[in-house]
Parts: sequence; structure tokens; C-alpha cells
Amino acid sequence: MTNVVSFDQQPWHKKTAALDALSALVADDVVAVNQLIVQRMESRVAIIPRLAGHIIAAGGKRLRPILTLAAAQLCGYQGQRHLKLASCVEFIHTATLLHDDVVDDSDMRRGGPSANALFGNEASVLVGDFLFSRAFELMVEDGSIDVLRILSHASAVIAEGEVLQLATTNDSTTSEQAYLEVVRAKTAELFAAACRIGAVVAGRPSSEEEALRTFGLNLGIAFQIVDDVLDYSAAQERLGKTVGDDFREGKVTLPVILAIHRGTEAERGFWKRTLDDHEQEPSDLAHAQDLIRRHNALEDAIARAQHYGAIARDALGLFPAHPVKQALLDIVDFTVEREF
Amino acid sequence: MTNVVSFDQQPWHKKTAALDALSALVADDVVAVNQLIVQRMESRVAIIPRLAGHIIAAGGKRLRPILTLAAAQLCGYQGQRHLKLASCVEFIHTATLLHDDVVDDSDMRRGGPSANALFGNEASVLVGDFLFSRAFELMVEDGSIDVLRILSHASAVIAEGEVLQLATTNDSTTSEQAYLEVVRAKTAELFAAACRIGAVVAGRPSSEEEALRTFGLNLGIAFQIVDDVLDYSAAQERLGKTVGDDFREGKVTLPVILAIHRGTEAERGFWKRTLDDHEQEPSDLAHAQDLIRRHNALEDAIARAQHYGAIARDALGLFPAHPVKQALLDIVDFTVEREF
Repeated sequence: MTNVVSFDQQPWHKKTAALDALSALVADDVVAVNQLIVQRMESRVAIIPRLAGHIIAAGGKRLRPILTLAAAQLCGYQGQRHLKLASCVEFIHTATLLHDDVVDDSDMRRGGPSANALFGNEASVLVGDFLFSRAFELMVEDGSIDVLRILSHASAVIAEGEVLQLATTNDSTTSEQAYLEVVRAKTAELFAAACRIGAVVAGRPSSEEEALRTFGLNLGIAFQIVDDVLDYSAAQERLGKTVGDDFREGKVTLPVILAIHRGTEAERGFWKRTLDDHEQEPSDLAHAQDLIRRHNALEDAIARAQHYGAIARDALGLFPAHPVKQALLDIVDFTVEREF
Repeated sequence: MTNVVSFDQQPWHKKTAALDALSALVADDVVAVNQLIVQRMESRVAIIPRLAGHIIAAGGKRLRPILTLAAAQLCGYQGQRHLKLASCVEFIHTATLLHDDVVDDSDMRRGGPSANALFGNEASVLVGDFLFSRAFELMVEDGSIDVLRILSHASAVIAEGEVLQLATTNDSTTSEQAYLEVVRAKTAELFAAACRIGAVVAGRPSSEEEALRTFGLNLGIAFQIVDDVLDYSAAQERLGKTVGDDFREGKVTLPVILAIHRGTEAERGFWKRTLDDHEQEPSDLAHAQDLIRRHNALEDAIARAQHYGAIARDALGLFPAHPVKQALLDIVDFTVEREF
């Protein structure tokens, strides 16, 4: 935990710097992927590229496609197929974001109005379907049945994870295991697939495919846990970032689960009222943050994330030294050391 | 038109009898497909098979998968692959139904409560995504990149068609051409793909593949036009079926388009108020039906459907006599002769 505490003092930009460093190593590919994305979201139906462009252009970090590009480079891949497959990964991710915002009835996404707020839920559902179908068309063009198997399975698991999340929302009795299963399915599976297909496209042995899958899966779990931590972080609030979205939506995430399990009956009553019964007063978020702080729930959630980060780090052990390998390790470090 | 008028007197069951006859020819396959569907909508997330089962079991006619089974039999296919692919077709269709009901905010589907009314819009969106992904997993298991190409393209076109339909809803200036483009994309493309993959799986020459695609596409257009006609049909009302759903939702379908184009300024004002501005009074549906009748719009919409039906019939010309061929021709006949 000392690690975390010390990083609490670190400047904010270290985290994005790690992603920037990885991104720089695959810079030409990122440009090509961005072009491909714009090209392939075209449709004779004008609202489709407008809506898709809104969310795709809205400053996403492109983390998932960058993982595909980086994994391919780490595997020594020399061709062009990874560009199309990285675009697929981003299309699948974008489709799930569009449907997520509809399911959550979100007005905001990445600090701007969400697509459903601007274009309506109907269009968001359907453009999500379009992007999803387009992703499969791109995979079919690529022609690898292995890639198709990996990404169609990941897509089904993501959908299962989202449904599972619905069942845990507004249920303060959600177990840590159920939470982990949701995180693994809705977030980590696509990270795993994005990394894995870098090895598949390079025709590397299954040990490297498995190593990259392990890396992606565990990075994804760590990433989501930290994301859930930041939603209650006072440091985030000081930086002017939105906090409390999960609380307002009644999502039962790891900081809350830890606070509930360590709390008194009265505290559990508070969580039940605010999360399950959705009766929230303006002062409730601050009280929730206070309970979470009192039970050390953010630190300990980060400790859990560090466990998955360690698995991710070790997974890369079988790859020789390489700038991309180092950048991937740095991504892990800065993910689990995000200040809160 | 005399044809239509004479069929207006025909007993209702003739139409379903034609589908029953086709279904009987592939009866064993239908049983196998139903088993496969139940098996493959399984998930460790209990609400997924419950919700999917609700819509899949809710008495759908299985028309699309039956078309795949029939086309495969017509092409002399002897294997088992068509069963999995027919299930894919039904999964894709079911996913679009689930998303349709969310987009239309429908409470009813096939005379019972819709899935979104029972389980919520959120679950319907996500289970639709799951079924869609599962369809691709089934295709990947089958392993044919040709089938994957056909169905991924069909899925993207369906989504485009649904978005296009959003743009024509509540717009009484929608052209007949725009209407046809919506129908072709949202309905006919999947009929075409369903038929075509029967030839693909049987490894038949591209002429037969094209013939079955042509058959399916035009049957699909005819089918949708007739469906849109029935929504304004007095005969349907007498039979106790729901009419007026499209009117209440402000959908601009062919009967309305014909009535608008043939109507007076005052009539166009009526359509604008009721469809575009969504100001409807209880007596408006009867008035809409009256205007449609006055302009012969149902008869002439059926005449349009018969044109597509004729193309579908002729497409089967290159196949030798076969009970399945005859049953497919009967389906066309009874589709465009549905009484209204």
C-alpha cells in the first residue's frame, strides 16, 4: 500500500504519459487505423457516420486498438492485417459504449453529451448494431476464422457481462465474486481478445497467444477496478473530474462492496437506501465517500487491482526485451498507480 | 386486381396452410433447428435464455430459418450444416426484433407482451447483442467464410435499414422509393441471405445462389408490403387482429404514401397532423382507413407486392420440379393474396 500512498503524490500526467509512450511506438499504425475507422463507418445513411463519428472522435484513448497494434509489433508482425483488426476492436468497443449509454440512460460520455442524448436512444441502439455488423464484415474481409472465433466469442461474453451487470445494479448484496465476473466479462474479455489477436495475426505459437491473452485479461480487470475507484476519488474531484456517476446509477462496484462488507448494520442501511432503493439526497455522495475512506476501501481495491496487474506483468515474461514490452509494462504500472 | 378481390373472399387459413406445407417438407430439420436454438441461447446468466426464450418461443413462424432449410433441400443438400446456419438466421432475426421493440417502445409483440415490456429495455438491448454475437459464433463453428460474408453484410444492411426507417418515421413526405429502400434493407435482405445460404451450403453454382437470393429478396419485399397493408385492413379488424400500430407509431408505409400522393391538400394536412406531429384523436384511425380505402391504396399496394412476388416466382424457374419448389411458389402466392 505504501506504493499507492506515494503515488498519490505523483503528478496526474504520468498515467497518460505511459499510454502516449505506447501510442508513439505504433504511431503510424494509429494514423492508419484512424483513417480506416473513418472510412469504414461510412454509410449511405447520413446519420450513421455522424453519430458514429461523434463517439469515435470524442477523444477516446483508442486503448484497445493500440493494444492490438502493440501486440502485433511485439510479435514481430510485418504485414497490414493488424490495422483492420484493430479497427474491428474499436468498432466493437464503440458499439458496446453506444448500447451502454442507452442502458444506463447516460447524458454524458467523456465530458461531452453522449450520443443518445444528442441523437436519441433509437439511433444509438441501431448505429451500435451497424458498427457491430461492420466489425464482422471487416473480420470477414481479413478472412481469419481464428480471429473471427476470438472476437465473436468475446462479443457474446461482453453482452453476457452487461446483462450480469444489470442484475447486480441496485443490489447492495452483490458479492465480490459476482463483481469480478461482471468486470471480467464486460471489460477484460475485449482487452484479452485485442492483445491476443496481435499474436494470431503474426502466426506466433500458442504460448505467445496465451501470454498476450493473459496480459490483456488481467490488465483489463485492473483497469476496470481502478476506473471504479476513481469514481469515488476525492483527488479526482479536486482535479475537476466528475465523480459519483456509479453511485447515482446504483452500480455496486468494488469500493462499495468492500465498504459494505466492512460496515455496520446502519451503514448497510445507508447503502441499501441509496443504491437499492435509489433514494438519494444531495449529501449522500459525500457520506458514501466518507464511509469508503473510513474502511480503506479505495486503497484495498487498488491492492486488488495490483494483484491483476502483477499477473499481467508476469505474462509478458516470455517475450524478450523490446520497447513495446517496456511500454506495456509501464501501462500496467501506471494503471494500478492512478492516484485517487 | 381481380385476383386480389377474389382472394378477399378466401378463407384466412390458406395463407398459413402454405407455410405449413413448406414447413412439413422440412419437418425433421425444423425440430432439429428448434433444439439447436434452445441449446445455443443457453448462458450462465439466467435472464438471457429466459428473455430469449420468451421471444423465440412466442409463436414465431420460423419463416426465415425455414427458407434456409427449404433452399438447402431444393439444392439437394445432404449434410447437417444447414441446421446451424438456419439457427443463425433466426438468432439474427430475433436480435433485430428485440432491438426493434426497444426502438419502437412497443408493449406488444405477436399478441403477447413484448420482451422489453416484461424484462425492460436494458435487458432487451443486451440480450439482442448476445443473440447477435451467438449467431456469429455459430457461423464461425460452421467455418464458411462465404456464409460469414453474406450474413455479416446482411446484418449491417439491416441496421442501416432500421436507421433509415427512423428518418422516415413521422415524415409524411417520405417517397415511395425511400420506403422501398427501407423495406429492402430492414426486411428483404435477411430473406435473401436466408435463401442464398441454402445454395452456398450445398456448394451449388452461383446461378442457383443468385436465383435463391433473387427469390428471397423479392419475397421479402412483397412480404413486408403486405404486412404494412394488413396494418390498415378492415378484414384484419373483423378477425380480431390488431390494426393501426403503424399509424399510432407514425410509420409512413406504402398504403399511407399512396393515399398521401393521391390526396387533397386537406388530406395531407390530416396525415401531417396525425403522423408527423403525432396529434391523434380516437377517431383518426378510422378516418385514415377511410382515406386509404377511398384512394384504393390497399389494393394498389398489394399490386406492387404482386410485382415483387412475380420476380420471386420467376427466379425459381431454373430449378426442376420439386415439392419444395412448389411449396415456395405457394408461399409467394399466398403472401401476395393475403386478404385485407
